[in-house]
Amino acid sequence: MRALEEKILREGKVLPGHVLKVGGFLNQQLDVAFLSEMGREIARLFADAGVTKVLTIEASGIPLATLAAQALGVPAVVVKKHASANQSKDVYSAKIYSYTHGNDYTAAVAKEYLAPSDRLLIVDDFLACGNAIKGLRDIIGQAGATLAGCAVAIEKQFQGGGDELRAQGVRVESLAMIASMTEDGLTFCR
Amino acid sequence: MRALEEKILREGKVLPGHVLKVGGFLNQQLDVAFLSEMGREIARLFADAGVTKVLTIEASGIPLATLAAQALGVPAVVVKKHASANQSKDVYSAKIYSYTHGNDYTAAVAKEYLAPSDRLLIVDDFLACGNAIKGLRDIIGQAGATLAGCAVAIEKQFQGGGDELRAQGVRVESLAMIASMTEDGLTFCR
Repeated sequence: MRALEEKILREGKVLPGHVLKVGGFLNQQLDVAFLSEMGREIARLFADAGVTKVLTIEASGIPLATLAAQALGVPAVVVKKHASANQSKDVYSAKIYSYTHGNDYTAAVAKEYLAPSDRLLIVDDFLACGNAIKGLRDIIGQAGATLAGCAVAIEKQFQGGGDELRAQGVRVESLAMIASMTEDGLTFCR
Repeated sequence: MRALEEKILREGKVLPGHVLKVGGFLNQQLDVAFLSEMGREIARLFADAGVTKVLTIEASGIPLATLAAQALGVPAVVVKKHASANQSKDVYSAKIYSYTHGNDYTAAVAKEYLAPSDRLLIVDDFLACGNAIKGLRDIIGQAGATLAGCAVAIEKQFQGGGDELRAQGVRVESLAMIASMTEDGLTFCR
C-alpha cells in the first residue's frame, strides 16, 4: 500500500534495536481516517477468503483489527494479555515471547468466542519475528478453527517471521514490507 | 440508546461484585457493526462540542474510541497502562486506582500527542467510580488542553463516578445508564 509506505517515510522514525516508531498515526495517536483506508484494503485482499471473524491481541493491533472487521462486515475477537498463566478451563491460552520486553506472557481468550466453524483472519500492527502470531495460531488450533490468513500493517521482513509463516503455507499480507532499516533510512520490499 | 439497553438485557450477564459481563459484543468479542452505530451516536451527541481528538486508555475502550473518532472525523489518542511509574520527561502520566484489580497503575502518553489547543473527548467502555477518567483529566490538565466531555458505552450510575463528574461541570453522556444491578436483573435510568 503505497500511501502507507509514504506515510512511514514521512512520519516514522527508526530507533536503535530495530524499533520503528510510528506512534504518530498507527498505535498511540491513531489517524483513524487513514487506518480506515487500511482496514478497507485488508478487506479487499481477503474478500474471497470466507473470513468469519478477525482475531487480534491486546493492545496495539486493536484499532486496525476493529476497522478491518468493519470493512469485512464480521466481528472481531481480542485475545487478552496476562502477566501470568491463566489456568481457567474456560479459556484457550498460549505462552508468547515478547521481543520488545524480553519476557514471556500468557495470551488467553474465552472459549465461547471461537468455534470450530470459524475462519479467522489475524490482524496486527506489526509482524517481526512472528511470536504473537504463533501464539494466536496455537489458540486457533486449540479451538479447532481455521486460520484464513494474517494481515499486518507493517512487516519487518528482515526479521523473518512473515517468511517463516509463508513457508508453512499461511497467507500473509503486509500493507508495507520493510526490507532493511537503519537510523539512516529504510527500504521497502517491492 | 435503546438498542444498547436491549442488547445488555439480552446478552449481558451480572456477576458478583457489580461486574457486568458484556464481553460477547463490547470488549472481548466485538460486534463491530453495532459498535460503529454506537460511535455514530457519540459523534451525534458531541457534534457541536468542537472535539479535536478522542482520548482513551488501554485496552477495552479502544474499539469504541476508534469508531467514535471515525464518526467525528478526528484522530484518537491511546493512553498506555504501565505496571510501574514512568518517569520520562517526554510523557504526561497519572496514577490510577483499578477497582477491578485492587491496585494502582500508571497511565502515560507521549507529550507530543496532546497540545494546549486540543479539545478532548474521553471515550471508554465503562464508567463506574470514574477512576480512569480522573486520571485522564489529570493528564489533560498537564497538557494544558481542554476536556470537551466524556462518552461511555455503559455507566453504572449507582457507583457514583458519572454524577461526581457532572457535579464538577463535566458533560458526561452514557449510551446506557444502569440504575441498579443484581444477579436477578438490572434496571436502567431513563
